[in-house]
Amino acid sequence: MTRLFNDPAAFADEALEGFAAAHRGWVRPVTGGVVRAAGTPAGQVAVVVGGGSGHYPAFSGLVGRGLAHGAAVGNVFASPSAQQIRSVARSAHGGAGVLLMYGNYAGDVLHFGQAAERLAGDGIEARTFAVTDDISSAAPEETAKRRGIAGDLPVFKAAAAAAEEGLPLDEVLRVAEHANARTRSFGIAFSGCTLPGADHPLFTVPEARMAVGLGIHGEPGIGEESLPTADEAARLMVGALLKELPEGVDTPDGQRAAVILNGLGSVKYEELFVVYRKVAALLGDAGVDIVDPEVGELVTSFDMAGVSLTLTWLDDRLEQLWRAPADTPAYRKGAPLAQEPATEAAAPYVEEIDDSRVPDATEESRGSAAHVLAALNAVADIVDTHAGELGRIDAVAGDGDHGIGMQRGTTAALEAAVRAHDLGAGAGTVLVHAGDAWADKAGGTSGALWGTILRSLGTRLGDQDAPTAEAVAQGVSDASDAVRRLGGAEVGDKTMVDVLVPFADTLAEAAGEGLPLTEAWQRAAVTAEKAAAATADLLPRKGRARPHAEKSLGTPDAGAHSLALITRAIHGVLPDHPLDQH
Amino acid sequence: MTRLFNDPAAFADEALEGFAAAHRGWVRPVTGGVVRAAGTPAGQVAVVVGGGSGHYPAFSGLVGRGLAHGAAVGNVFASPSAQQIRSVARSAHGGAGVLLMYGNYAGDVLHFGQAAERLAGDGIEARTFAVTDDISSAAPEETAKRRGIAGDLPVFKAAAAAAEEGLPLDEVLRVAEHANARTRSFGIAFSGCTLPGADHPLFTVPEARMAVGLGIHGEPGIGEESLPTADEAARLMVGALLKELPEGVDTPDGQRAAVILNGLGSVKYEELFVVYRKVAALLGDAGVDIVDPEVGELVTSFDMAGVSLTLTWLDDRLEQLWRAPADTPAYRKGAPLAQEPATEAAAPYVEEIDDSRVPDATEESRGSAAHVLAALNAVADIVDTHAGELGRIDAVAGDGDHGIGMQRGTTAALEAAVRAHDLGAGAGTVLVHAGDAWADKAGGTSGALWGTILRSLGTRLGDQDAPTAEAVAQGVSDASDAVRRLGGAEVGDKTMVDVLVPFADTLAEAAGEGLPLTEAWQRAAVTAEKAAAATADLLPRKGRARPHAEKSLGTPDAGAHSLALITRAIHGVLPDHPLDQH
Repeated sequence: MTRLFNDPAAFADEALEGFAAAHRGWVRPVTGGVVRAAGTPAGQVAVVVGGGSGHYPAFSGLVGRGLAHGAAVGNVFASPSAQQIRSVARSAHGGAGVLLMYGNYAGDVLHFGQAAERLAGDGIEARTFAVTDDISSAAPEETAKRRGIAGDLPVFKAAAAAAEEGLPLDEVLRVAEHANARTRSFGIAFSGCTLPGADHPLFTVPEARMAVGLGIHGEPGIGEESLPTADEAARLMVGALLKELPEGVDTPDGQRAAVILNGLGSVKYEELFVVYRKVAALLGDAGVDIVDPEVGELVTSFDMAGVSLTLTWLDDRLEQLWRAPADTPAYRKGAPLAQEPATEAAAPYVEEIDDSRVPDATEESRGSAAHVLAALNAVADIVDTHAGELGRIDAVAGDGDHGIGMQRGTTAALEAAVRAHDLGAGAGTVLVHAGDAWADKAGGTSGALWGTILRSLGTRLGDQDAPTAEAVAQGVSDASDAVRRLGGAEVGDKTMVDVLVPFADTLAEAAGEGLPLTEAWQRAAVTAEKAAAATADLLPRKGRARPHAEKSLGTPDAGAHSLALITRAIHGVLPDHPLDQH
Repeated sequence: MTRLFNDPAAFADEALEGFAAAHRGWVRPVTGGVVRAAGTPAGQVAVVVGGGSGHYPAFSGLVGRGLAHGAAVGNVFASPSAQQIRSVARSAHGGAGVLLMYGNYAGDVLHFGQAAERLAGDGIEARTFAVTDDISSAAPEETAKRRGIAGDLPVFKAAAAAAEEGLPLDEVLRVAEHANARTRSFGIAFSGCTLPGADHPLFTVPEARMAVGLGIHGEPGIGEESLPTADEAARLMVGALLKELPEGVDTPDGQRAAVILNGLGSVKYEELFVVYRKVAALLGDAGVDIVDPEVGELVTSFDMAGVSLTLTWLDDRLEQLWRAPADTPAYRKGAPLAQEPATEAAAPYVEEIDDSRVPDATEESRGSAAHVLAALNAVADIVDTHAGELGRIDAVAGDGDHGIGMQRGTTAALEAAVRAHDLGAGAGTVLVHAGDAWADKAGGTSGALWGTILRSLGTRLGDQDAPTAEAVAQGVSDASDAVRRLGGAEVGDKTMVDVLVPFADTLAEAAGEGLPLTEAWQRAAVTAEKAAAATADLLPRKGRARPHAEKSLGTPDAGAHSLALITRAIHGVLPDHPLDQH
């Protein structure tokens, strides 16, 4: 969906204007596009790239030292006209001729070809070159019919780096041909894109499906499949590219390749990284040495959701050109800062924190640790059982991740507790380790608070004595204080504090009356359940409000509810012989 | 929509792994996040930033020389745990203490605060600093309650650049405070975002509405309005930021500001540039001098559609820190290449091509030019009237922009023709100028072909004689030949050639029989209409296929249809006294 525009007909022009205004250090607007702000050095071949708008950073974002000398920019998804190209090329011309480069599309071929003819008429020597990297757009024996997609970048870059070296026009053209012959791309798409002012997408991909080899303007691909996992997507793309090696490359093993994992618009960088993780592993397995990979949006198609993988199989010459520095608005290579030497302090810090620190414990406390394990087991179980419900409650006014976060935390807490117990830890240390693991894995606010609860309780119980009801009650009170201090919430704010405080108070009162732990805990658990239910009548305090918190009236707080569930679950596994009767 | 993932619970970890694999030159993974690959120089304060995943390039993408020394990376939208932060900080520590920096969110405040305490326990001096730039999240008198959004970047950068200078910890902290006090952001959003594995968005914004000040995790904003134009969006954001100037800035006039126009995820770069165009103009109007603007995705919120504007009001010190070089995976500043001097060849090329070149014309040809104007007027009218229909026909199997493209072309052609006619051009020159303008403004394949049609016709007619029917027919035949040569299509390929060739042939035949132009044209126009209708029975030739071209069976070709419409419209304005009877 394109939402931010003024007159749709002016979109491409206004975008180019804003782009140029934001990048004055790199580019200067001219009729038809942009050229380098500092111009083309005299006697250097000018590489002028171009194509329709909607593919940013192609094409204007690739203008600058080490890459293009100019970009002709057409309307949305429409080739620039021959006049525009001619104008840009004349501005970019440094006296040594112009190489016009573009993706292989009918409109571009037409206009760039006409522009070259007119430039010849102007006395400027010009050559044209169309990039043809998309292997799904035509068969291997018809490579000249293939489209140009993200392979534009390495092919443009190779030619531009050669121009930067001062090579003459026809040699720059030969470099482009050589780079293109060794560059292959393969893409998949999950959605189309919507142009400015349009009320429906230019093309569509069915929900939960993937178009294999779909072109960047919706040109037909080679098939449709179910939505893959990230790893499957990586396998599909790597597999397709390893199947069609360029001439002169018999096996991937031992080869070097420039790798570009390109997002087409609305795929997130995080998703690209998840896919790249597997791409790198698969190429590594095949024996390919990855050189200077690029993961990001290099050639887009508006807000299309899709991803493509490009490999340029490098020989020494192409590797040198790929590694050459570049400085454009959207593509920078080479260090702007001299590298400082690594320091002593940079030595990797890999200690698994606290994990091996298990203080001595008494037999009694180690025995109680088994009960702690049982309790944490029950906690993990109850959270697992109710994770969906907790998520739904949280989603009413929050971000809906309470169930997932609690699952992560309780699972990690149980694992850490088992580990500590195996190492002979007492009840206190088991709880402290469990709390740290909970906070560590769950993250977020609830992770921090639950980590604190377990840590407070563990610190109070220690590793010496078997826990008494009083000690447990005191530990819970410590936890209640710590949570209020850390989280800054008070009773009535519609948080877990609404349950934790009365639970702690009731437990302390009951323990003070001399009740055994199971009975005291039972009374406190009932209080907790009532308090959790009562949070449905509350509005969160202003300033502590979670998203759309006002919507949550009538629904209990998720953190309060999960705490009540947990107190109940723990009661179910408290030993028949209460701890204080050991 | 997040589509590319494996196990949703592993998403953040896998993304971090892939990120680190793709950026080995910059970062090294450690427990809990990443640190600079080259480590922290000995004796330098380490700036460790962090927060939840889903905000890339925040936070891992900002690690490198001139910016952060390390990033602690939590789960999706969840703070990293104190343990993770502590681990990253210990790895990044260069012996001079650590400044922990993050956006002001409850979970982050909790965990970073706990981490600082534990680091103190480890013997590492640590300070914490929460960025609070989002002015819509709390009132001016409660700035400490404000959230941190894209202002993270300039505040992190100021502190890091100060650390890079070798300042001690407390002075680096003071720089952070100073930068934060002069940094303000304001954002708008159009959609929520969907987390990995979720089947519905985390939060939503109603269709065609805009949430003003919505937080990056869906925290409530300050209102909801209709979807603005790009210029209105710019006005809203600039207006809000100019209303709340920081202490010490009485009027924007004469001030310098770092400007960040930040995309939240699925807003396209082109849209950002359109908005930036107006932002720059408005700030210029207010007297603000923009220093090194950044337009792009700097702090995102998964695939949320939204945009925020950040201003850091610069004094000399902050400007120096903002301009300092940086080299991180996602943020690079400073030239990797020495600037070459501008050359003669770089002189701007601004000639409005051909526009002033009007050869002498006879009175007769100038008279005919008036008829050409009338014809172009009729062409523009008929295209305007049918633009929607042409778009719909084209959308069946193409990209649906034929109507818009033809409108752009015919409008530009008419304007150029009027201009040429005003300058005294003859019929031939008027047509050539009109053709060039058509190709120039419409772009795309059809723009190139129509430009060629008018140019061919104009070249044949010349500026001397009043056009005869024979000359017009010969010009149309020239156009038909040129279109086939340029476009590579033949009759039967389901393109405009299916109409142009029989139209040209019939016109030539009728003119050859001695018919006056209106009658010859009438006969040819009937042929054209039939030929256009007949394209509905054709399938495009393989290899020339437009997207999903097979769907177009039963629908005429849009280019063929518009050509037939145009021949009919021109017939309607041919002079009562046919040209050849003058």
